[in-house]
Amino acid sequence: MINAAGREIPDHLLKEYGKTGYQGMIFRDDASYKKAAPTVRAAVDPSRDKQVASIHEALVKCGIRDGMVLSFHHHFRDGDYIVNMVMEEVARMGIRDITICASSLGAAHDPVARMIEEGIVTGIQSSGVRGKIGEAISYGKLKTPAIIRSHGGRVRAIEEGDVHIDIAFIGAPTSDVCGNARGVGGKSDCGVLSYSMVDAQYADRVVVITDCLVPFPNLPASIAMVDVDYVCVVDQIGNPAKIVSNVVRLTKDVRELMMAEYCAKIMAESPFFKEGFSFQTGGGGASLAVNMFLRTILKERGITMGFAIGGITQPMCELLDEGLVKCVVDAQAFDQASIESIKNNPRHFEISTSEYANPMNKGAYVNKLDFVILGALEVDVDFNCNVVVGSDGIVRGAPGGHPDTAAGSKCSIIVAPLVRGRIPTICTRCTSVTTAGEAIDIVVTDYGIAINPRRKDLVEAYRGSKLPIRTIEELRDAAYVITGVPDPIEFEDRIVGIIESRDGTIMDVVRKIKE
Amino acid sequence: MINAAGREIPDHLLKEYGKTGYQGMIFRDDASYKKAAPTVRAAVDPSRDKQVASIHEALVKCGIRDGMVLSFHHHFRDGDYIVNMVMEEVARMGIRDITICASSLGAAHDPVARMIEEGIVTGIQSSGVRGKIGEAISYGKLKTPAIIRSHGGRVRAIEEGDVHIDIAFIGAPTSDVCGNARGVGGKSDCGVLSYSMVDAQYADRVVVITDCLVPFPNLPASIAMVDVDYVCVVDQIGNPAKIVSNVVRLTKDVRELMMAEYCAKIMAESPFFKEGFSFQTGGGGASLAVNMFLRTILKERGITMGFAIGGITQPMCELLDEGLVKCVVDAQAFDQASIESIKNNPRHFEISTSEYANPMNKGAYVNKLDFVILGALEVDVDFNCNVVVGSDGIVRGAPGGHPDTAAGSKCSIIVAPLVRGRIPTICTRCTSVTTAGEAIDIVVTDYGIAINPRRKDLVEAYRGSKLPIRTIEELRDAAYVITGVPDPIEFEDRIVGIIESRDGTIMDVVRKIKE
Repeated sequence: MINAAGREIPDHLLKEYGKTGYQGMIFRDDASYKKAAPTVRAAVDPSRDKQVASIHEALVKCGIRDGMVLSFHHHFRDGDYIVNMVMEEVARMGIRDITICASSLGAAHDPVARMIEEGIVTGIQSSGVRGKIGEAISYGKLKTPAIIRSHGGRVRAIEEGDVHIDIAFIGAPTSDVCGNARGVGGKSDCGVLSYSMVDAQYADRVVVITDCLVPFPNLPASIAMVDVDYVCVVDQIGNPAKIVSNVVRLTKDVRELMMAEYCAKIMAESPFFKEGFSFQTGGGGASLAVNMFLRTILKERGITMGFAIGGITQPMCELLDEGLVKCVVDAQAFDQASIESIKNNPRHFEISTSEYANPMNKGAYVNKLDFVILGALEVDVDFNCNVVVGSDGIVRGAPGGHPDTAAGSKCSIIVAPLVRGRIPTICTRCTSVTTAGEAIDIVVTDYGIAINPRRKDLVEAYRGSKLPIRTIEELRDAAYVITGVPDPIEFEDRIVGIIESRDGTIMDVVRKIKE
Repeated sequence: MINAAGREIPDHLLKEYGKTGYQGMIFRDDASYKKAAPTVRAAVDPSRDKQVASIHEALVKCGIRDGMVLSFHHHFRDGDYIVNMVMEEVARMGIRDITICASSLGAAHDPVARMIEEGIVTGIQSSGVRGKIGEAISYGKLKTPAIIRSHGGRVRAIEEGDVHIDIAFIGAPTSDVCGNARGVGGKSDCGVLSYSMVDAQYADRVVVITDCLVPFPNLPASIAMVDVDYVCVVDQIGNPAKIVSNVVRLTKDVRELMMAEYCAKIMAESPFFKEGFSFQTGGGGASLAVNMFLRTILKERGITMGFAIGGITQPMCELLDEGLVKCVVDAQAFDQASIESIKNNPRHFEISTSEYANPMNKGAYVNKLDFVILGALEVDVDFNCNVVVGSDGIVRGAPGGHPDTAAGSKCSIIVAPLVRGRIPTICTRCTSVTTAGEAIDIVVTDYGIAINPRRKDLVEAYRGSKLPIRTIEELRDAAYVITGVPDPIEFEDRIVGIIESRDGTIMDVVRKIKE
C-alpha cells in the first residue's frame, strides 16, 4: 500500500507484522484496546532478599534464555555502561537470538554490532540507532528488520503488547536494597529515569543496576520497589563525563543565530504566543539559542510561559529560575545544569515517557504543547521529515520525541539550514519519512521560512509579516540551485528497518544500502 | 475445609469463588501470575476535552449500565460526599445491580444501605463496612456476600484480576483539566491519594471529581492524567471538618496510658529496637500515646527511627520534625497536622497502597516493618484477631492494614484493654478471624502482656523482663473472671460476608445474624 505519508509499504510486510500503513495523525483516536500486562512473582515472605552479587546471577535468577527480549534505557547516553555490561555476560553465557528493546542506542554500544554479526542479537527495537549498530542494520547484518519508534511510540508498543519485555535492566544512579531507584544522588546522576518507568511496569522481570546503594527507603522513587525483582551493585554504571555535558554550547554560528531569531519571531507573531503558552525545544545549536531570543521577547511583552517540557537543558532551567516559565516537566536531562535544577528547584518535575508522549494513553503532555522546535535531516515539499536515515543511506538518527511533539503541538517548527555540506535539507522527496508532513507546521531555514499550506490559520496569521516567508518549493529550489538536484541513494530490495508511526502503523521502511 | 486459622470455610463457597481457604502467611510466596489490565481508549487527538458538566454526563460517557463495578476511595473518611453523589445519580438513572468496590465505607455512606435494600447495590467489596451498610450486610439485605479485604488485599484483588473495576471515581482536592490530581492544594485537602492509585491504573474508565480546578499541570500528580478519562468539577467533594480531625486527642485515660507505656517498653526491650528501626502505629488512644513514650526512650538511647509508615498522625510528624524519625512514608493522612506535614516537610512522602501493603507484588513496605502497633476487637488464645465483627455479631469494623502489617512486620503488637464494657477482648475463640494468630507476636493489655509462643526468639528475648508477661490463657482467664464466659452470638446459616486473606485465600465467613 501507499500510506498517508506517500510511502510504499510492502503488503507482505504489513501481513507478516499484522499492521497497517500510516493513515494519518489521529487515525487511531478513541480506539479501544486492552493493555498488556507482565507475569510477575510475588514476594510475600518479608525475609526475601533482592540483592544479587553479579549481572550473571541476575541473569540466571531471571531465567535468561535464547530468544528473550531485554530492555534498556538511554538516560546515560554516550556514557552508558549497562547495555554492554549485560550483553557481554549474555554472550559469555552462550545465549543467542536476543532482541534489544532500548529507548535509544548510540556510539557507546558499538560492541553490540559484533553481537549482531554473531547472531547473539537478532532483533533491535529502539528510537536511536547510531554508530556501528546503525551500519550493521543498514548493511543487512541484523537477522530481523530493526524497528525504529519514537519515544511515545515505544511506550505505546510496550503498553499495547506489540513488544513484551522479558527482562528490563535499569541503570540507576541510586537504589536501596529493595530497588527503589532514582535518577539522582549518586556518582553517575542522570536526573530522571522517565524512559524506564514503563519497562518497570510491563517487563516480567526487572533488574536495577546501581553503583550507589543508599539507605532504605530511597524516596521519592522514580522506579518503585514493587516492580523490581533484583538489585545488583556494580562499580560503575556509566562514565559521568559522557552522561552529561557540563557545558552547554551556546552557538556563535551566525547562521544558527539567525535561524534561532526567526524561530523566536515566528513564535511571537503566532496566535498561540500568549500568557501561559507551552514550549519544547531541542539541544541543537539553533534550538538552544531560541531560548535566548525568547527571553527578550517574554520580558518585553510581560508574558510567562506556562510549562516547558522535553529533554531539558540549562537555558530552560535559567528561564525557570528567572520566573519566565512557571514549571519544567522533564523526561530527560541533557546536561549537568538540568540535573542540578531537578534536584533543587521544586518547580522542576520528572514525568514518565508515557506521560510525555504515548499517543495511546488517555492524553499525553505533548497534546498540551503550543510550540515545539525540532531539527531534521531532510524536509520534503510535502513537509515530511526524515530524522533517521543519513544522506549516505545509513541509519544514524533517532525519531526521539520528533513525531510525538510534532503531532501533539499546536505549532511545530522545524529549524534546519537549507543546505548541509553539499546536501540539500529541503528536497522534493525525503529519503525516508519519520514524521509525516501533516504534523509539521512551519519550516525555518537560513534562506527563509515556509508555512505548511494545510495550516490555513497560520498562513492567514502571518499574512503581512515582515519575516522572509516563502513556499516550501521556493526553499527547495534555492537549495537545489546550490547543490544541484541530488542523485537518489541506491538501495537493495531487502528491508532492514521498519519506521513505525507513533500509533503503531507503519510510516516507512528502510532498505539495505547497496554496497 | 478447616483453614490454617482453624476456621471452617464451606466447600461450596470455595468452589463457587474458585478459591482456597487460608493456608498460612507465606503460602503464596513466589507464586507467579499475569497481572490484570484495563481496557482503555486512546486520546490521540490533542483537541479532546476531558471536562464534563455533571456526574450524570460522566456516567453517560463512561457507558454506565446494570451490573457494573464502581470504585471509590476513603481518604475523605466521614466527610466523603463522592460515594453518595455518584450513587444517587446512578439510582436516579434507574441503574441496578451495582457492585461498590471501595477502599473503605463508613457512616458517611448510610444512604447506600437503602440502595442495598432496593437492589441498586447488590455487591460490596471494601475494607471497612460500618454504620447502616454493616447492618444491612449482617441482616442479609445484600444480594451477594460482602467481600472484606485488607488494604493490601484490595490492591492484590485488583492487580490480580479478582475484581475488575468498570469505572473508578476519584475525589481529588485539586485537579487540572486533564485529570492530574493531588491530595493537597484545595479546600478539601486529604493529604494523599494512595488508595486511588491502583484504581486509576486498573479501571477501564476513570473519573476525577474535584472542587478545586487548578492550572495545568498539577504536579507532582498523585493520579496521572494518562489514566484519567473525565474531569468533573463539583461544588464540594467533602466536608473538610469531617475529612480531618483538627485536634489529635492525646489520651488522658490512665488505662490507655499504661498500655502505651507497656508497648513502648516492650519495643525497647526487643532485639529489633536499634538505630534505623521502622514503625507503624494506629490512630487509637493507646496507639497514639506510644509515640510519646517512644520519644523519651529514643532520646535517652540516642536512637533514630529509619522510617515510619501507615496512616499518619500529628505525633509521628512531630517526631519527624524533631529528627527522631528519618522519614515518614504515608498512605493515609489522619489529621490536619499530617496534611500540613506532607505539604511542607520534604522527608514526608506519599506512596501507593500497592507499595504500602500488596502481598502479591515484588515486595511492599510492610515487609520492611520492624514494629507495628495494632488494635483488636477480640484476640483468642491462638492469637487470632477479629477487627471486623462487633460483639453483637454485626459487621462494624475494617481490616485496614491490620493483616498486612501484622504479616509483614518482624514484631506485631496488639494493644487492647482486657475487657471492654462487659465484653472480654481476650477470649477462647474469636467470633470471626481477620488476622491469623501466626502473624501476631505480642498482645499488650492493661492486665499484662502475652508473647506468642510461636515466636521462640521473642519468648527468649523477654525472659527475665520486669514487664508483666503472662500467657494468653492467663489473660483470657482474667478476662472471663471479670465478664464470665460469654454466650456465643447466634447466627443463621446464610453467609453474608467473606473475609478474604490478604493473599486472596479465604480467612473466614460472616453469617447472617439471628434476628
